[in-house]
Amino acid sequence: MPKIVDHDQRRREIVEVAKRLILRGGFEAATMRSISAEAGFANGALKHYFPGKDSIVAATFESVLVQISEHLDASGAETPSAEGELRAFLFSTMPRDREQIAAGRVLLALWKYALVHPALADLYRGHLDGWRDALVTRMEAARDEGAIRDQDFAPLADEYISTAIGGTIVHLMHPGGERIAEYDAYIERFLARLR
Amino acid sequence: MPKIVDHDQRRREIVEVAKRLILRGGFEAATMRSISAEAGFANGALKHYFPGKDSIVAATFESVLVQISEHLDASGAETPSAEGELRAFLFSTMPRDREQIAAGRVLLALWKYALVHPALADLYRGHLDGWRDALVTRMEAARDEGAIRDQDFAPLADEYISTAIGGTIVHLMHPGGERIAEYDAYIERFLARLR
Repeated sequence: MPKIVDHDQRRREIVEVAKRLILRGGFEAATMRSISAEAGFANGALKHYFPGKDSIVAATFESVLVQISEHLDASGAETPSAEGELRAFLFSTMPRDREQIAAGRVLLALWKYALVHPALADLYRGHLDGWRDALVTRMEAARDEGAIRDQDFAPLADEYISTAIGGTIVHLMHPGGERIAEYDAYIERFLARLR
Repeated sequence: MPKIVDHDQRRREIVEVAKRLILRGGFEAATMRSISAEAGFANGALKHYFPGKDSIVAATFESVLVQISEHLDASGAETPSAEGELRAFLFSTMPRDREQIAAGRVLLALWKYALVHPALADLYRGHLDGWRDALVTRMEAARDEGAIRDQDFAPLADEYISTAIGGTIVHLMHPGGERIAEYDAYIERFLARLR
């Protein structure tokens, strides 16, 4: 009797395996062979779900960006004030423990991959736009509440995002979290500037 | 009659070739074979100068960091005021044309390589410290001149550096220079904050 296989579910499982391998050993560690082995597939079986490594990698990065975006949407949702939500959002989008710092490895692989895969670069640009929109929305809500001044929020949001992206790199060079407090202080200064 | 070969000169030439190859095709494009071919060496001859690819790559990244540091030291040296020098320094450490944006590819390769080569991570951390020192020195000179307020300069310098590192990534996603004006405006806001 043939097994009933949920094709999409299998694809998701394969993506999770690829993500783990990239996190552990970098982009080069995720080969068709290593993904098959880790996912418990026979060597050729992966081809039923993805035509090749490129399509697995693209799906993996897409999944990572979706995860980050969901994280962005969810953050601060339970704080009582718009200012509190803005604050929670800023802290949640900066790496603040060793695990989050290590996750920067996936982004580093993604950026490199995006240089030669325009579709992924598009996806990442869309991710950055979504990040800016989410931040501006929270700034506007805090302004409506009277917690911060009215001002041109989009450039400030982009500035924060650039600093946070730079922070991903700086933290990777200090994987023990030696620079976390410095970025916390940056967020406080950023909030003070908005007031 | 044997040719007189300047060993160090040859090493520098090889490093320049490796840099070109990394810029053009990323880290993976710089193989012992491609470097030999591009440098006009017979296939085994490279080994007289470098034991393997790792040592070439380390020397290449070291050379890139030295180049950037020299660029940092030289920038703004001919402006009449300390404030002008600080300003020139900030603009010169941000990618501001397509060529400088493309050079970010080398940094991307360097960061990735630094994750698995502690000596290179050390070198890069030292580079970031030197960058901060160079920036703080210029801020102090501008303060002594009365152009900016006295304040805790080191965190502001680190903030600028993080934003500039993030800018390297953002610009790589917009290689036509679509985001340059935005970063110029950021530098103006940064200077205004110091006053």
